[in-house]
Amino acid sequence: MGLELYLDLLSQPCRAIYIFAKKNRIPFELQTVDLRKGQHLSDAFAQVNPLQKVPVLKDGDFILTESVAILLYLARKYKVPDHWYPQDLQACARVDEYLAWQHTALRRNCLRALWHKVMLPVFLGEPVSPEMLATTLAELDMALQVLEGKFLQDKAFLTGSHISLADLVAITELMHPVGAGCQVFKGRPKLAAWRQRVEAAVGEVLFQEAHEVILKAKDSQPADPTLKQKMLPKVLAMIQ
Amino acid sequence: MGLELYLDLLSQPCRAIYIFAKKNRIPFELQTVDLRKGQHLSDAFAQVNPLQKVPVLKDGDFILTESVAILLYLARKYKVPDHWYPQDLQACARVDEYLAWQHTALRRNCLRALWHKVMLPVFLGEPVSPEMLATTLAELDMALQVLEGKFLQDKAFLTGSHISLADLVAITELMHPVGAGCQVFKGRPKLAAWRQRVEAAVGEVLFQEAHEVILKAKDSQPADPTLKQKMLPKVLAMIQ
Repeated sequence: MGLELYLDLLSQPCRAIYIFAKKNRIPFELQTVDLRKGQHLSDAFAQVNPLQKVPVLKDGDFILTESVAILLYLARKYKVPDHWYPQDLQACARVDEYLAWQHTALRRNCLRALWHKVMLPVFLGEPVSPEMLATTLAELDMALQVLEGKFLQDKAFLTGSHISLADLVAITELMHPVGAGCQVFKGRPKLAAWRQRVEAAVGEVLFQEAHEVILKAKDSQPADPTLKQKMLPKVLAMIQ
Repeated sequence: MGLELYLDLLSQPCRAIYIFAKKNRIPFELQTVDLRKGQHLSDAFAQVNPLQKVPVLKDGDFILTESVAILLYLARKYKVPDHWYPQDLQACARVDEYLAWQHTALRRNCLRALWHKVMLPVFLGEPVSPEMLATTLAELDMALQVLEGKFLQDKAFLTGSHISLADLVAITELMHPVGAGCQVFKGRPKLAAWRQRVEAAVGEVLFQEAHEVILKAKDSQPADPTLKQKMLPKVLAMIQ
């Protein structure tokens, strides 16, 4: 059995992996795990990942979770162009720095923005107070300031003059609040220009394809009551 | 100027870096940033890291934040023994997997356990409700189950038969709740035996030296009111 990737493009790290694999012509079999149908909570998927989360990579008997680990594994195994994860010590450290920072910063805020603005009320039928939503969006705004001020600065890409894993992980995060209808790039010309460069580097067709699902998140059908009951505590733990 | 490390051993990732550098005889100049004196909020330190956080590595003109990125930088630059961050594709991926997982899992829970149990009430004079503390400790318990069940399993170390960066990052996290008086290893013989192996691999003298500060966290002097006012919102954001 060759490489299998368990993904749902609703999930931001899944999109990063999907784009990375497609862009670098890495052959894989897509195993779709439909999160909105609760397929990640099934017994069958628990055999693959007991933590009930996507993405998962399966390469023969080797099962790997965590998107950053999966991206690095793919970059190394398939010897992708150097700019994605440079050999140069300092350039590589810049990518590592971003990949470490985002976990508790941009990641958390983009996830909360999507769930508080769209997925909790629309999909799980759980209203979110305007105060809570305002706090979430203010925190997102602060993370965007760091993204621009500390990471992007005046460079073409987050870690230098070429696209790297950092850009891919960042843009797929930002498309979460975009999917929720947040004007992430409004009034941020530097970030907006960076987005254009990332889209161009990835290829617009692939970028659109990967983001079709999230850009329609607002049209999610409400979960049935049994599924809602099963998912709600896990979702609340995930976005805390 | 050679390698400088800005650390406070009260911080768990700082301890990981300190132990790693000392154990591998990496020469560095220690720049202590006393968090309990608010030195990370000083203008001088903002020149080094505008995000006002430790650890920071300064190698000539090159400034690097984020503990995971710093550990990888040191491992590569100083060509440390392979077991810390293996060249083997799958072994390396296991380390990456742990280093990615811990950010939002064990890290968050160990940090909250220390602050809710000790630092908020003792150092910042902010009482924490018994309910909140109970929730925090229950979440820590769940993270410990994953640490044991998914990562350690029946291996000697978290990612294989030798100590790696994953073990170092994990043990320094766990010493946070230990410093707060939590019985992390009680009733967990596998984790307790692992701790002994990690301590032995690191060297007990170095391990004790690195953990002296956290093991006395309960004796922290209360912050003065001005410092408390400055620190509290940042602490609450950090441990949310």
